[in-house]
Amino acid sequence: MTPRAEVFAVGDELIHGANLDTNSKYIASQLEAAGLHVARFTVVGDEPAALRDALAEASRRAALLVVTGGLGPTLDDRTRDVLAELRGGPLWFHEPSWQQIQAWLRQRGRPVPESNRRQAWFPPGAVPVPNPVGTAPGFRVELGAATVFALPGVPREMQQLLAQTVLPALADWPGLRPIAQRWLRILGPSEALLGERIESFMLPGRDPAVGITASGGLLTIRVVGSGASPAAAEAACDATVAELRPRVAEWLFAEGTQELPELVVEHLRRTRLTVAFAESCTGGLLASRLVDVPGASAVFAGGVVAYANAAKQALLGVPEALLAAHGAVSEPVAAAMAAGAKARFACDLAYATTGIAGPDGGTEAKPVGTVCFARADAKGVHAWTVPIPDLGRTFVRDRAVFEVWRDLLRGGRAVPSPSTV
Amino acid sequence: MTPRAEVFAVGDELIHGANLDTNSKYIASQLEAAGLHVARFTVVGDEPAALRDALAEASRRAALLVVTGGLGPTLDDRTRDVLAELRGGPLWFHEPSWQQIQAWLRQRGRPVPESNRRQAWFPPGAVPVPNPVGTAPGFRVELGAATVFALPGVPREMQQLLAQTVLPALADWPGLRPIAQRWLRILGPSEALLGERIESFMLPGRDPAVGITASGGLLTIRVVGSGASPAAAEAACDATVAELRPRVAEWLFAEGTQELPELVVEHLRRTRLTVAFAESCTGGLLASRLVDVPGASAVFAGGVVAYANAAKQALLGVPEALLAAHGAVSEPVAAAMAAGAKARFACDLAYATTGIAGPDGGTEAKPVGTVCFARADAKGVHAWTVPIPDLGRTFVRDRAVFEVWRDLLRGGRAVPSPSTV
Repeated sequence: MTPRAEVFAVGDELIHGANLDTNSKYIASQLEAAGLHVARFTVVGDEPAALRDALAEASRRAALLVVTGGLGPTLDDRTRDVLAELRGGPLWFHEPSWQQIQAWLRQRGRPVPESNRRQAWFPPGAVPVPNPVGTAPGFRVELGAATVFALPGVPREMQQLLAQTVLPALADWPGLRPIAQRWLRILGPSEALLGERIESFMLPGRDPAVGITASGGLLTIRVVGSGASPAAAEAACDATVAELRPRVAEWLFAEGTQELPELVVEHLRRTRLTVAFAESCTGGLLASRLVDVPGASAVFAGGVVAYANAAKQALLGVPEALLAAHGAVSEPVAAAMAAGAKARFACDLAYATTGIAGPDGGTEAKPVGTVCFARADAKGVHAWTVPIPDLGRTFVRDRAVFEVWRDLLRGGRAVPSPSTV
Repeated sequence: MTPRAEVFAVGDELIHGANLDTNSKYIASQLEAAGLHVARFTVVGDEPAALRDALAEASRRAALLVVTGGLGPTLDDRTRDVLAELRGGPLWFHEPSWQQIQAWLRQRGRPVPESNRRQAWFPPGAVPVPNPVGTAPGFRVELGAATVFALPGVPREMQQLLAQTVLPALADWPGLRPIAQRWLRILGPSEALLGERIESFMLPGRDPAVGITASGGLLTIRVVGSGASPAAAEAACDATVAELRPRVAEWLFAEGTQELPELVVEHLRRTRLTVAFAESCTGGLLASRLVDVPGASAVFAGGVVAYANAAKQALLGVPEALLAAHGAVSEPVAAAMAAGAKARFACDLAYATTGIAGPDGGTEAKPVGTVCFARADAKGVHAWTVPIPDLGRTFVRDRAVFEVWRDLLRGGRAVPSPSTV
């Protein structure tokens, strides 16, 4: 029986709508790769009773609980108090932790507030876990039949302690059943259509399990398999993927979890092309998404954010007459922008975007969501228009970026427009 | 007693590390604004037993459960089956929902796969909630003493159904205790130092509750108060904020939840200044974050992403000799980039960034994280360097963007560098 794990995130800022819990997802993927089955995430606020009840229940269900948050120096950080209460005893003071906290602060030339001392107190039976990248030490403590790891909520501190302490501690747990995952990236069909095509793979209880997720215009087929060893889990996934591939061949455009910009950089490296962007409505989003990818500098010549007409003229050489005749949101202007960018950056390939992201600026002829694209390459310049549904400014801009990645990955060849938006 | 609500998100993609649950945070903020107390988020996978157990437990604790996900057309969508099981009866078919699904697909010229029919089946006693923006209808069903709303997992569909059905249904619930929130944005002190300054406000059980959150170099003091009426809750928050303000005056730089780019656009509009960016290591991030803000076009002249040296010369007029003498990552080059951008975009203010975001490219003299900045304005050009901790490429670029917003909001005046990174 695979050991069952649950993940907890603690903090009023998470439950009362200020911040998004990103830790749980990260922790779950790490635990699952190590062979545990993550069954549930729970997010609670700083109110101690809520955390206490949730942990007490979970300790009856799961073998491992990983808790993030509530270890800071201030009075609204209560994870250590709650775990002391559940262990039925007072907190105890760990002098080495306090020394370490002081050293960390002094090293950075910061004052040492007395309140940081709170972070050196631990529940009965807890084993402190030193924090090399912040002031909040974590700890490990048993709760009924479950082992609890309490980690700081700051993501990079959590990640460090997880890698350094939690994962090594799991290495010799009994019953670990390693899992492997595969992802097939799909462009074209609706979710229902894809689901029908691979329906026989999606029955409950199948191992490897096969599921479909829709996100940002793309569908992903997710294959999750387990095995007695990592190799067995990998082999099980490979076998399922080998059966799936021919069924979805016409729509399959990539495998793996790489984000589109990563696939784009890889594609450009492989084809030895450099790219530039002339962005109006996407406003730097194409450039910044590409530059997010390590190694992008090898393929990215540069970009111009020509949001205003004056900038389109001055930096991309778009003729004023063209702007006057067709308006900034037009295929001729997009084509001139792409051609201008290709010439100025002396690159192989340039894309231009110009459109109406909203909320204002729409007209009857060009409603919000109208975006014109152009691609300039060795063969010339090609411009086209996509009417993106007006589902908000961010949606329109994201969808416009997606359109460029799509065209770029297809090498400019015509492909069916995705039916999912 | 304020009615207690819990929020559920269902989907293997959420728990097995592929996607982030953003729905729960959105739903919680809407429910809390309406006067409910959201006590917990739970995320479970597609495995029916996990959802069943979690819902059964929660129905004994909470008056309202909002569930998102698991209403799609494929076999891994099982929310309706689980709720039928909990209600102890079979699913029933709702012809009007099926008509609506077909109409929605046909209107968009899409095929109508038989599998979409699954979405027209409902648990015993459920009241279907039509979906005007997708194929998955939601529904409302009673479970013990709790009311359950099941909504689709696609965020824009969920948001629509929440606004249209859930929130109106809550309007006359007994015992609602409206809450109000305030946010004080803090730049300068460490979390512990700030915590000491306002410690007396942070005691458990205080209403309005006061808490501190650290995120991206900023601290936020969050004030959450409740009252018999929305006005009473607002007044309680205002009273607490009035007491807090003088205690943190030297560090307070904004109030509210506006993101920094929104504050920047507001600041530029108020001071009637236009800005341009010359970006190397931030690679379009400054431009794209600013353009994310509706109305940015009034203050944003444009940007150049001059990632390669050739682009720095061709588009910003950075002299080749300067690049050769000082290297691309240097204050003189940053200064030339800013001056070039200000001239080319004919604007009031230009910022330049050039640095080493990593993972490669660091040297002993200029390690990864070294970022040079320059600001060109009516008074001339000022350049400076910030050694950003090498905590990953994304961290370095985000922190560099933050540095520009910070300088811009302070109007170029010297301020203490934030001690939180």
